[in-house]
Amino acid sequence: MAAPISLYFDFASPYAYFALDGIERLAEMHGRDIQWRPILLWAVFKAHGIAPPMEVPAKREYFEADMKRSATFHGIGDYRHPTRLPLSTHRAARLFYDLQGSDTATAHAFGREVFSAFFTRDEDISDEETLVEIAARAGVSSSDARNGMNGETGRAQLAAMTDAAISDKVCGSPWIIIDGEPFFGADRLPQIGWRLAMT
Amino acid sequence: MAAPISLYFDFASPYAYFALDGIERLAEMHGRDIQWRPILLWAVFKAHGIAPPMEVPAKREYFEADMKRSATFHGIGDYRHPTRLPLSTHRAARLFYDLQGSDTATAHAFGREVFSAFFTRDEDISDEETLVEIAARAGVSSSDARNGMNGETGRAQLAAMTDAAISDKVCGSPWIIIDGEPFFGADRLPQIGWRLAMT
Repeated sequence: MAAPISLYFDFASPYAYFALDGIERLAEMHGRDIQWRPILLWAVFKAHGIAPPMEVPAKREYFEADMKRSATFHGIGDYRHPTRLPLSTHRAARLFYDLQGSDTATAHAFGREVFSAFFTRDEDISDEETLVEIAARAGVSSSDARNGMNGETGRAQLAAMTDAAISDKVCGSPWIIIDGEPFFGADRLPQIGWRLAMT
Repeated sequence: MAAPISLYFDFASPYAYFALDGIERLAEMHGRDIQWRPILLWAVFKAHGIAPPMEVPAKREYFEADMKRSATFHGIGDYRHPTRLPLSTHRAARLFYDLQGSDTATAHAFGREVFSAFFTRDEDISDEETLVEIAARAGVSSSDARNGMNGETGRAQLAAMTDAAISDKVCGSPWIIIDGEPFFGADRLPQIGWRLAMT
C-alpha cells in the first residue's frame, strides 16, 4: 500500500472541516490511509512569523463571509458559524492523541464529534466539561476523557506533532502532504485527486 | 444586462493569469461583462497591514511550488515560472488604463500580452522598452505606448483604482467582486460559477 496521506489541521479550522469528507473519499479511492495530525495552528504561525489571518481585519471580514458561503458550497446544510473563533484546541488535540494511542477508530470518531460540536452546534470545544460530553458521543468514558486531556501522552504527542508541522513548513489548515508534496486548503481537493491519480 | 464583474489583479500574479480564461468563460455564459482592474498589490497589502506572502519564507516555498503545479493543473502547458517575482507592475497597469480610455479591446489585448510575456517567456514586464515591444504585439505604436506609460491619465487611473481596491478590502489577486460579494483566488472559480448561476 502506498504511503499514508498526512492531514495537518486545527480543530477550529472551518476549511479542515469542509475538506474532511472529500479527502477521505479520495484517499479511499486511491488506496491510501490518512494520518490525522491535529496541531495548534497559532503555534505554527508564530514559529514561521505568520500573522494569523483572522487577526488581520480586512482578511477576517473576507474569511468570515467565505467560510459561511463555502459551507453551503460544500453541501454542509447544518453549518453554524462558530461564535468562538479563534479558540484554543489544545485539550481536544491532546485527547485525540491519547485515544489514538490505543484505538485509531475511536480517535477519529472523537475528532468527528469535535468538528460537529464546533461547526454545527457552536459548542465550546476549548472547555474540559464540554469535551467530556463530546467524547461520550464517541463512546469514551468521562474518566478516560479527563485523563486523556490532562495526561502526559496527549500533551507530548501534540507538542511533537506541532514541532513536526513547523519542520514540515505547514502554513495553514488543512495542510495535506502526499509523498512529500504539500497541498493547502479545502480548495485543493481537485488537485489532490488529480495528483493521486498520477501515483 | 446584470452588473459587470470586477476583476482586481496584479499583472505579476500567477493566480490571476490562471483564472483569466475561466472567469471570462463564466462571465460570458452568464451574460456579464468583466471590468479589468489592474492594481499594485503591494500598495494594497501595505494599506491593510498584510505581509506579502512571497516575503514570508515558509509561504514563499509553498507558493513557488504551488504556482508551477497549478499552471499544469489549469492546462497551461507553456508556463514558465517568472524569475522576477515580485516585481513592479506600475508601468504595465498605467499603460493598460491609458489604452482603456480609448479602446477596451486593445487594452485587454495588451493585458493578455503582458501576462503571456511574463508567464510564458519570462520577460521583464517592469521594463519600459520591453513593454513597448509587448504593446506592439497588441497593435499599439511605440509612441502611444511610451506616452501611455508616462502620461497623467494612466497614472491617475492606477492610483484611483488602487485606492478603490483598498476601500473594497481587496486582500489578494485575483479578487473578484460579483454584485458586491468578493471571491479570492483562482480556486474560487467553481464557487463563482455556482454563485452566478443563482443570479
